[in-house]
Amino acid sequence: CGELRSAHVGQEVTLCGWIQYQRQGLFLVLRDFQGLTQIIIPQDEAHSHVKKVLYDAPVESVVRVTGTVTSRPPGQKNPRMPTGDIEVKVKTAEVLNSCKKLPFEIKDFIKKSEALRMQYRYLDLRSFQMQHNLRLRSQMVMKMREYLCNLHGKRNISSEYLGAKEFVVPSREPGRFYCLPQSPQQFKQLLMVGGLDRYFQVARCYRDEGSKPDRQPEFTQIDIEMSFVDQAGIQRLIEGLLQYSWPNERGPITTPFPSMSYAEALAEYGTDKPDTRFGIKIIDVSDVFRSVEIGFVQNAVNKPQGTVKAICIPQGAVSGVCLVLGNMRLETANLLESRGLVLRDPTAFHFLWVVDFPLFLHKEENPAELESAHHPFTAPHPSDTSLLYSEPAKVRSQHYDLVLNGSEIGGGSIRIHNAEQQRFVLETVLKEDPELLSHLLEALKCGAPPHGGIALGLDRLICLVAGAPSIRDVIAFPKSFKGRDLMSNAPDYITPEELEPYHIQVAWPAAEAEANKN
Amino acid sequence: CGELRSAHVGQEVTLCGWIQYQRQGLFLVLRDFQGLTQIIIPQDEAHSHVKKVLYDAPVESVVRVTGTVTSRPPGQKNPRMPTGDIEVKVKTAEVLNSCKKLPFEIKDFIKKSEALRMQYRYLDLRSFQMQHNLRLRSQMVMKMREYLCNLHGKRNISSEYLGAKEFVVPSREPGRFYCLPQSPQQFKQLLMVGGLDRYFQVARCYRDEGSKPDRQPEFTQIDIEMSFVDQAGIQRLIEGLLQYSWPNERGPITTPFPSMSYAEALAEYGTDKPDTRFGIKIIDVSDVFRSVEIGFVQNAVNKPQGTVKAICIPQGAVSGVCLVLGNMRLETANLLESRGLVLRDPTAFHFLWVVDFPLFLHKEENPAELESAHHPFTAPHPSDTSLLYSEPAKVRSQHYDLVLNGSEIGGGSIRIHNAEQQRFVLETVLKEDPELLSHLLEALKCGAPPHGGIALGLDRLICLVAGAPSIRDVIAFPKSFKGRDLMSNAPDYITPEELEPYHIQVAWPAAEAEANKN
Repeated sequence: CGELRSAHVGQEVTLCGWIQYQRQGLFLVLRDFQGLTQIIIPQDEAHSHVKKVLYDAPVESVVRVTGTVTSRPPGQKNPRMPTGDIEVKVKTAEVLNSCKKLPFEIKDFIKKSEALRMQYRYLDLRSFQMQHNLRLRSQMVMKMREYLCNLHGKRNISSEYLGAKEFVVPSREPGRFYCLPQSPQQFKQLLMVGGLDRYFQVARCYRDEGSKPDRQPEFTQIDIEMSFVDQAGIQRLIEGLLQYSWPNERGPITTPFPSMSYAEALAEYGTDKPDTRFGIKIIDVSDVFRSVEIGFVQNAVNKPQGTVKAICIPQGAVSGVCLVLGNMRLETANLLESRGLVLRDPTAFHFLWVVDFPLFLHKEENPAELESAHHPFTAPHPSDTSLLYSEPAKVRSQHYDLVLNGSEIGGGSIRIHNAEQQRFVLETVLKEDPELLSHLLEALKCGAPPHGGIALGLDRLICLVAGAPSIRDVIAFPKSFKGRDLMSNAPDYITPEELEPYHIQVAWPAAEAEANKN
Repeated sequence: CGELRSAHVGQEVTLCGWIQYQRQGLFLVLRDFQGLTQIIIPQDEAHSHVKKVLYDAPVESVVRVTGTVTSRPPGQKNPRMPTGDIEVKVKTAEVLNSCKKLPFEIKDFIKKSEALRMQYRYLDLRSFQMQHNLRLRSQMVMKMREYLCNLHGKRNISSEYLGAKEFVVPSREPGRFYCLPQSPQQFKQLLMVGGLDRYFQVARCYRDEGSKPDRQPEFTQIDIEMSFVDQAGIQRLIEGLLQYSWPNERGPITTPFPSMSYAEALAEYGTDKPDTRFGIKIIDVSDVFRSVEIGFVQNAVNKPQGTVKAICIPQGAVSGVCLVLGNMRLETANLLESRGLVLRDPTAFHFLWVVDFPLFLHKEENPAELESAHHPFTAPHPSDTSLLYSEPAKVRSQHYDLVLNGSEIGGGSIRIHNAEQQRFVLETVLKEDPELLSHLLEALKCGAPPHGGIALGLDRLICLVAGAPSIRDVIAFPKSFKGRDLMSNAPDYITPEELEPYHIQVAWPAAEAEANKN
């Protein structure tokens, strides 16, 4: 419906689509995935049947029409419509499927509640914006595949999903469960041990986090792993990948992307994912305040490692410690933008590598113990390897994050490929039972090549490129905040008989068991 | 390692790979995903360190060497090796990871048990055959994506997995379960209602069948759905897709593929997936036998619809009823081939469309009731639509199967797009509760376009193209017969505490509960 132009005038055409709009049996606008076309309904007696069919068909019914492409009369052309120079004079019309009254109109400007959109997702998908987002996603992913598969000889290998961690899936063996993994991390490392030295996958991953806004229990990542590669090698590959797949209409992106250490990011922006589209950096003003006689400031500066920092806000001023300042910086940006100052250009795309993360963090609940900052397979920074055995808390890692306009869109690392080092990290530093990962430790002993990789969060990336307000706008069938599919009503109750082959039964919380009894 | 040729002679190179073979400190063969290269170890005193490093490194260790590409001396060239004209004289060598003694050697000719291969899948993947299979799979899938996405404007849209049927996944809401779907069937139909008129996805699907040989609990399909399309349109698309993605080394395939009705297939081959690479068809010899005075033959022929059929076997003869004859035909082929007669050319690829399936089948346990031959969304054959309301058992469907060399590699149908017809099939013919599919029935009322689709079983297809004995040879990390991952030991026991957030507990069978108690 969106492809006819002046060049087609005089041609006989058949169009199938949805009735977007119909006016008093005079004309209608037909819509399909390609766009809109204006249809002129014949008014003569010979075509009274055609007129009746189209007049009676409710809006959003599916029709097939045949007719002749004609030029619109002078003054009636619509330059804002790609097919605005032509219209189709109908000869025959057939209703392929009639439409009942819809719960909402298919018009982008009509506000619908999130719950209604999710319940009738198949109608929501008819909106111009959703169709645009999903088309953009399909095209960009295809370009990524071309870049990785054709230009870089990566092997697209599916890892298997029923395996690792998180969501549990009961099996037919009593007491045994599969799990839906958060990522194919272990499998991709084992592929490297298997000598499949360049792997990528557009991988479906699962994360059971309960209800977090703008997160999905299932999500998609571009997952990459390579052997015989270093951090710079992976960074250059990703820059090339994004440059190659970037949509033309968003303008070119410049590579290499700038890089910043974790320590710098925290000091200057109060976050490990700085939005570098605007300044308002954090400035260390301790020296200025050291000589000032304000009690609480003096107290702060005179403590060991005590500092006073400030951010410089156009037409304003604040001071405090770094994470709070980081949040304040973003709040300030919101405030200033609400007053009409444009700080964050929505057409600008600022990529940033954040590097040199700490390998371990002190546990919040017990600061004497360490936990992995990312995951236990991350390799230590080459300059800090010896510290691993003496002062592990000071070791930097070979982890890298990719940040776009203040959102983390990817992360990866060079992995540990030495079994002894991996066992030391698991057993001695993290106090975990290495037997749980015995197959991985075993694999590292079998000639595991040095390797590393990265995963890009596809949903978030496409969301930013499309300028969509939520990742739910770039996913065809997303789940609600609470992980519910409001259309098919999943998750749903099932009968004890259906659970029987899996050897499980529901452990009802006391209150509900009581309610069920009554 | 597989890329160096005579043209590179004189160049300095760095190679990383696995030691495939090492001989008395004189030379070794280095292997990576690209192939093999012969490495000459220097024997002079100045390089004694290099010699020691390479001499001490166990087979399958990972090494990095630098050296000069040289021509092999006359008489020592190996024409069977792509790099057989050259060798690399090493200057420096470094062991990147040493390898322990492996549970089996990485040589294709060494027989390993299936269980051992699965337990050490990362070693099994190093074999030439597995690397070849996975490379073939990656390349063929990429060609398919190019064909669908670039040449045919299909949108690659991910449907979401936590939704429909089969494997159950407990959620954090007491008593509510997600399911892992067997296929994205409903979602792709809803995409059509959503106006995304050309969809494809390389979809991961799940099937919980317990233990069936050569089936996997998770499998991959090329999933396609289109609006405003008929059976022929989908068949031509699939033929083009296979032709475009077919590997050069398997020779060209001819389109259109031949087509055969379900009735013909059953009558002539005794199966709905005939291997048409060889004859031995079933012949109806009832007329010959009608006048023959053999009691049991007379009994058979004189019953209503009674027939006597036979197959003609070179150097042999049998007779019987059709499904048995179909099996006998394959058994006969096995027997004749074991005696040296080649009936089924392993280099021939015979595609066949099987069409005009019955829409419903009589239930085995209760022949008075009907069940869907495929699924309840399949549309009736246009010539049989009126029969649907009078004699549903006689209605043919718009389902089509694609058969390759006697294996079903795909199937699809034109779907019902009329809500009334869909409700009639569910409620009146199949006696199912239409409320369970109320969201789909609701969607069909909202201007659902005529639509249809198909799914190709990717694992089976690649298996046939690769000539692999099992689909496990074209999947990186398959599960065993019993659905076990022998490497990571999934499915595995988990603690009651881990089950708590999901409000389930294990219902141990009596015997095991007793054993646990003691």
